[in-house]
Amino acid sequence: MMDADRAESPLLQHSQPYNELESRFGRIGQLGDIAGMLQWDMAAMMPAGGAETRGSQLATLKVMAHELLIDPLTGDLLDAAEHDWADALDPWQRANLAEMRRAQRRATAVPADLVSALSLAASRCEQIWRQARADSDFNLVLPSLKEQLKLVREQANILSGALKLSPYDALLDGYEPDGRSAEIDVVFDDLAIFLPEFVGKALEHQAAKDAPLKPKGPFSIEAQRQLGLKLMGIVGFDFAHGRLDTSHHPFCGGVPDDVRITTRYDKADFMRSLMGVLHETGHALYEQGLPARWRGQPVGYARGMSTHESQSLLMEMQACRSKEFVSFAAPLIREAFHKSGPEWEPDNLHRLYARVERGFIRVDADEATYPAHVILRYRLEKAMIAGDLEPIDLPGAWYAGMEKLLGVRPPDDAHGCLQDIHWYDGAWGYFPTYTLGAMTAAQLFAAAEAELPTIRGDLSRGDFSALLGWLRRNVHGKASSISARDILVQATGRPLDAGVFKAHLERRYLS
Amino acid sequence: MMDADRAESPLLQHSQPYNELESRFGRIGQLGDIAGMLQWDMAAMMPAGGAETRGSQLATLKVMAHELLIDPLTGDLLDAAEHDWADALDPWQRANLAEMRRAQRRATAVPADLVSALSLAASRCEQIWRQARADSDFNLVLPSLKEQLKLVREQANILSGALKLSPYDALLDGYEPDGRSAEIDVVFDDLAIFLPEFVGKALEHQAAKDAPLKPKGPFSIEAQRQLGLKLMGIVGFDFAHGRLDTSHHPFCGGVPDDVRITTRYDKADFMRSLMGVLHETGHALYEQGLPARWRGQPVGYARGMSTHESQSLLMEMQACRSKEFVSFAAPLIREAFHKSGPEWEPDNLHRLYARVERGFIRVDADEATYPAHVILRYRLEKAMIAGDLEPIDLPGAWYAGMEKLLGVRPPDDAHGCLQDIHWYDGAWGYFPTYTLGAMTAAQLFAAAEAELPTIRGDLSRGDFSALLGWLRRNVHGKASSISARDILVQATGRPLDAGVFKAHLERRYLS
Repeated sequence: MMDADRAESPLLQHSQPYNELESRFGRIGQLGDIAGMLQWDMAAMMPAGGAETRGSQLATLKVMAHELLIDPLTGDLLDAAEHDWADALDPWQRANLAEMRRAQRRATAVPADLVSALSLAASRCEQIWRQARADSDFNLVLPSLKEQLKLVREQANILSGALKLSPYDALLDGYEPDGRSAEIDVVFDDLAIFLPEFVGKALEHQAAKDAPLKPKGPFSIEAQRQLGLKLMGIVGFDFAHGRLDTSHHPFCGGVPDDVRITTRYDKADFMRSLMGVLHETGHALYEQGLPARWRGQPVGYARGMSTHESQSLLMEMQACRSKEFVSFAAPLIREAFHKSGPEWEPDNLHRLYARVERGFIRVDADEATYPAHVILRYRLEKAMIAGDLEPIDLPGAWYAGMEKLLGVRPPDDAHGCLQDIHWYDGAWGYFPTYTLGAMTAAQLFAAAEAELPTIRGDLSRGDFSALLGWLRRNVHGKASSISARDILVQATGRPLDAGVFKAHLERRYLS
Repeated sequence: MMDADRAESPLLQHSQPYNELESRFGRIGQLGDIAGMLQWDMAAMMPAGGAETRGSQLATLKVMAHELLIDPLTGDLLDAAEHDWADALDPWQRANLAEMRRAQRRATAVPADLVSALSLAASRCEQIWRQARADSDFNLVLPSLKEQLKLVREQANILSGALKLSPYDALLDGYEPDGRSAEIDVVFDDLAIFLPEFVGKALEHQAAKDAPLKPKGPFSIEAQRQLGLKLMGIVGFDFAHGRLDTSHHPFCGGVPDDVRITTRYDKADFMRSLMGVLHETGHALYEQGLPARWRGQPVGYARGMSTHESQSLLMEMQACRSKEFVSFAAPLIREAFHKSGPEWEPDNLHRLYARVERGFIRVDADEATYPAHVILRYRLEKAMIAGDLEPIDLPGAWYAGMEKLLGVRPPDDAHGCLQDIHWYDGAWGYFPTYTLGAMTAAQLFAAAEAELPTIRGDLSRGDFSALLGWLRRNVHGKASSISARDILVQATGRPLDAGVFKAHLERRYLS
């Protein structure tokens, strides 16, 4: 494939294109890792006056990584490695090469002026959205949402051509590599039929018992922090390779060798922050378990958003909200706050951690109603990208969808289609990964339990070692060497199956 | 100067070479600024397990900045801007261009293989030095010190040719742009004659009075921190653009819009950390006062090490250890620790903050003996670079110098030539800037006082506004637009004059 007119290409200087690519992509990876550290700092440490400089530092890192990715030499090296050297590569190297090509293909497909127009439109729209949400005034943000969607659809169409995917899948693929809406439709349609009736039954089941007692604060922030650190350690967080700090929006950031998770404390309620810490710890364990050999290479990063979310939700929803773990944790929680009484008993705490409620706000939703919020957003964004739904009709479609899926009607757009930053900030194709993660978590946990029947008993003694070992072998250690679908199939024997998630919900909320 | 064989140079694409240079050097500056943030994080936040990845991130940032600096296009753009466009530039742009050339000339002079040999030798030598210092065994580190010095001398000779400076001055110039040993010799020789007798007199003067009383701890770290924050604010630190944290070695890092200073706390002694915080605040005020218009450009950075040290020492030694400021601070200090008694009276605290003692260790030395430590190191490193002193003879020369300059003989090499990291880590030509900074601080403060006679009165009320305004106008706002020498001449009417520093010492320690 080395055409005659490439005879003078600098490529000839590289006798081993694959090695040269590892060094280029290592640099690209490091630029991204560095940006990750600066983003953590921005959220957890930076004084307000540092924002402008930081924004410009992050932009520079992004531009420099992008320049390396779209450099024609990168393309030439990929061509050469794929065609002439691929046979000499081992499976991880081949997977690495495929991930390099994936990143390069996405980066080169979209013209530079569209990239900057998108970035500009998103930041403008996000800024107006903040005001629109505060005022619950959808019309305020409508013009910039329309402008942004127009550009996003343009991007989706270009990517569609380059990647041979539908426009929506081309966007989805950026968050969920190899994710396909045809497969998502199947499991989401299944859940959409199941959920309305199930939520009704769960609420009835819940109402038949006395309401659990709510522990009364205040709970000192330092005591909450110490308790969080203690449980993080029990779950398996490696403090030689990470930290816990505070930020307005909790997240897991940093790099695999130095994972920075954050939480937010409320003196009146320790329960939410504590479970938030365990959720982020799930993300962190994934990062800390990625294979050291492949640090900074495309194949060495976490697989995608649904797999990442599956790790946080497996820890939070499957392991830590289980009766077994709550029984273990209850005495530690009581000690942390020097409290006692019926509200501190395991059964009461477990019931508090498994309440179901029909609400308007996704981020406040419980495990059982959350998927309805996500399915609504997934269907709406797919319709908007396809051109079947215009932004002006979004509020109406939102109200209708909420009534159908959850049986509630939000009082206004601030509690409706203005509540999430995603679309206004340019993140289209992201939403489904939350619920794909929840379903994947249930399926992985069920498989782990089938293979290691002592796992629930372990949790009741605060012993996560067998579970973590299973995740290391079946998920973390595989990084991006295979697809999310293949990780799941190899670990559980089958592709994503809504039945496992439904069974989990029924066991937890109806029995 | 556009040679015919350059007709095809990419330079022709740049109609305005100076603007293109601003953009290139802006990127180089940002890479350095980002490294600065990561270095702060490494010292103040990073868990131990993050060290290897962080080291490699920092190396990548350094290499990428270096690649941009030595890129032939950078040289072509500099040639073009200097020769054809310089007339169109304003004075700051011209100064910026000169600073760009300074950086580019240094970077291109030294061959890449020598750069990496130096970096390798320094990191190897530094590692062995840690053991040698712990064991007080100079012979252990001697071979790697010799190897390192050989490479440093090679570098100094190459830079000497490229910069038309003596080898030592070529190294010095890297820390102290336009610093020249011929000028340093004059003021240091003057001080070296003055100091031995002066220190004797100061000790006699001190012995004639009762010893001051030492406040008894423990002093809680949180109370120390709050007190430090309070005094930082009083001095003028802008917390919208900076933070105070903890690290093993206190320093001032970050970037002008987000200055990160650190300290280290000792529960038994609050005095050292508190004055350390005020010292770093002096550095921080310089950074925060740099002109916003020139952020990230070579001309927009702080001038050099002696000017930087002059700002910390002006705040610490001239302003905050003054009788006036200590009288103001004493009640705040008492309140912070809920203490009272004679040891907390201003006069006692002031005397504690102005003790003189002949010691072996530079970093523990007081204001009066510190210059002797520095002059010794300056003379020794100059001799080693010139080839007049061999490393094997360093311990002997050290003992002799200490006896002559300070009248004490260290018990061993750990308290002698092994105490400082500088030479072992490859920092040759750095030492004189400490005492140049101290002298500059005295001279600047005297000039500010002459211009604004109310300054000492202001300090006794905790009002730093006039002093800070003077520093903003005369030092901070000038950034690197003129040399350190010219900053001093414009601010004080004359070049560095040992007499002002000597007068300051005599006033504080003999009257």
